[in-house]
Amino acid sequence: MQTLQQSFQVPYTYSIFFTKGLFSLKNTVLSSFFRSFVEAGFQRKALFVIDGGFLAHYPSLPQSIISYFSGVEDAVKLVPDILVLPGGEEAKNDPALFDKIVEAIDEHGIDRHSFVVGIGGGAILDLVGYAAAVSHRGVKHIRIPTTVLSQNDSGVGVKNGINYRGKKNFLGTFAPPIAVFNDLSFLQSLDDRDWRSGIAEAIKVALIKDKAFFEWIEANAEALAQRSEDVMAYLIHRCAEMHVEHIRSGDPFEFGSSRPLDFGHWAAHKLEYLTDFQIRHGEAVAIGIALDSVYSVKVGKLSDDELQRILAVIQKLGFDLYHPKLAENDKINLRNGLREFREHLGGRLTIMLLDRIGKGVEVHEMDADLIAEAVDYLEGHFSSLLMS
Amino acid sequence: MQTLQQSFQVPYTYSIFFTKGLFSLKNTVLSSFFRSFVEAGFQRKALFVIDGGFLAHYPSLPQSIISYFSGVEDAVKLVPDILVLPGGEEAKNDPALFDKIVEAIDEHGIDRHSFVVGIGGGAILDLVGYAAAVSHRGVKHIRIPTTVLSQNDSGVGVKNGINYRGKKNFLGTFAPPIAVFNDLSFLQSLDDRDWRSGIAEAIKVALIKDKAFFEWIEANAEALAQRSEDVMAYLIHRCAEMHVEHIRSGDPFEFGSSRPLDFGHWAAHKLEYLTDFQIRHGEAVAIGIALDSVYSVKVGKLSDDELQRILAVIQKLGFDLYHPKLAENDKINLRNGLREFREHLGGRLTIMLLDRIGKGVEVHEMDADLIAEAVDYLEGHFSSLLMS
Repeated sequence: MQTLQQSFQVPYTYSIFFTKGLFSLKNTVLSSFFRSFVEAGFQRKALFVIDGGFLAHYPSLPQSIISYFSGVEDAVKLVPDILVLPGGEEAKNDPALFDKIVEAIDEHGIDRHSFVVGIGGGAILDLVGYAAAVSHRGVKHIRIPTTVLSQNDSGVGVKNGINYRGKKNFLGTFAPPIAVFNDLSFLQSLDDRDWRSGIAEAIKVALIKDKAFFEWIEANAEALAQRSEDVMAYLIHRCAEMHVEHIRSGDPFEFGSSRPLDFGHWAAHKLEYLTDFQIRHGEAVAIGIALDSVYSVKVGKLSDDELQRILAVIQKLGFDLYHPKLAENDKINLRNGLREFREHLGGRLTIMLLDRIGKGVEVHEMDADLIAEAVDYLEGHFSSLLMS
Repeated sequence: MQTLQQSFQVPYTYSIFFTKGLFSLKNTVLSSFFRSFVEAGFQRKALFVIDGGFLAHYPSLPQSIISYFSGVEDAVKLVPDILVLPGGEEAKNDPALFDKIVEAIDEHGIDRHSFVVGIGGGAILDLVGYAAAVSHRGVKHIRIPTTVLSQNDSGVGVKNGINYRGKKNFLGTFAPPIAVFNDLSFLQSLDDRDWRSGIAEAIKVALIKDKAFFEWIEANAEALAQRSEDVMAYLIHRCAEMHVEHIRSGDPFEFGSSRPLDFGHWAAHKLEYLTDFQIRHGEAVAIGIALDSVYSVKVGKLSDDELQRILAVIQKLGFDLYHPKLAENDKINLRNGLREFREHLGGRLTIMLLDRIGKGVEVHEMDADLIAEAVDYLEGHFSSLLMS
């Protein structure tokens, strides 16, 4: 009998809105969004899941949400039980939190045409997105990221995931949100480390794709370090725009082995794990960028002048370029890190390096001795800073 | 700041192969498939998960698989630990079985470019497909369905799922397989009930889409009941072809509320549950088709002549048209069934009825009294059969 060939395309669209004071009663960004879905014959619901860490900064948030939705009842019915879960990496490590969200979806009759709304940092959005993606084979998911990192990077992308037996993002799916709402005023809740942390992804995307954006970051590094809200607003918008363009024009669900946006990430993932998540993701990415930039010079790609500019901007923003865990058994730990990175992506090892500022280049192997030399280089840089 | 608009399409392709003796050493269908993936730089692996119920009929299967793969080592490395799990609905009810597959994927280093192969009936394929879909955000999944139902319907489609707190397919995803291998000789393992059961989906798809195929089933009902392998081969191929065409030309991941292929299924799902899964899915679907066909006459769509032809072919194949649980608290149970069906699909209630043989028509409400009358009609039919 003849072989049957199946072939189709699945279309996805979503918007990323930028606003301030999302739940202020006069702000219609969110209410207009819900009103665009009104359809005769049934009522959609919205279930909220909030990051407890964020809630501590905005204790009035649940009340604001309830007030806001009382004015949108014609379009959507708020589930009055607002779920509050711990944020940060803990959200992704505890399977019971996944169960809590799925149970709430079941109990409150959230169906494929209703909404599960996550508010918080990247970790809780990853958890909420995963629970939403697998309930009823996918209920509509809205992300309201509250950190620089989630507003400019993970929150605007198409992935979700939780950790499993210590392996980061072992369980997850590709499931685009139905909308993302970036509220600049939520960033006031961040401490300096978290404010800074999200900038690492902007440096990353600039280095591999856009020299002009890197030069803009260079020119504005001081203002960013001083927490200028306007400068941060532009950084987030441009970074989100590049992230979204990259997904659209590339391989959105990563069927291939390539993952260009993971520049600097293979070492970063391992470093987060080695420090027991005591350093933030963005802090680890900054070190990972530094390491792969030094390595790029060592294999004759990037120039030393460019490297010095990269290291200078990372430092000017207040990041460390080095962590002692990087050198601890570095040959073993980092080699394992490379292997785990390859396993999670699958297929052939594919690592992004820098050809020059604004232009990444993929390689399929890394030399353990040269990695060790790059670690030594950053350690030397670190020691000289300590002495200066 | 300007709203960002994301929009992209994700392409999917897969083949459905039809063969006999898939693991016979001279059969190259499977080995050719694996050889088409060979790529320098890494070795792909294949992890097998087998339905224990099927294995009881083919105790030599693991040895056959090992022998077969020893000849394909250039292309793919078989994981020698072949996982055997209980099949049937139990596979979807026990979360520990999901964990077992995920653990095996982790332990054996199955990455996104390696394969998880499920062999068995629809339930175990739903479980294996789900575990594969969420591990590393999706490892490649091969389905080898061993029942009529899974070869012509669920196994060639794009869904997976497990049950959660008694709710069918509450957790799952849309995740197309990378390939499906339908081996006709595996159907010899089926008892008469399971052989027959899969024919219900063929009647269903014929009734809503293809009058000529319905007439072919009418003409071949006796041969099908007598287990003619050649006739079954055609039925499976045509049914799979229509299923695949339907997915391609429609809404593959069911973003809308419509689900035409669920004709006869709302009552079937409830009946399976009410009988504690003592009746097979296909047996329940046959009754569900009968019920919605009678209902279609009652609302002035289908003609009575056509109804009699439909009921006759269902009976000729050996199906019951009625189950006493259908009448038990029918107004409450069936109304709940409708509600649960709507909730799982989400949005507005959308039910497929028959305009005529070969042409379905969607409605957005069903009348409880007319449903009860349709149940009475089938019960009367049933009683008269008992007396005849």
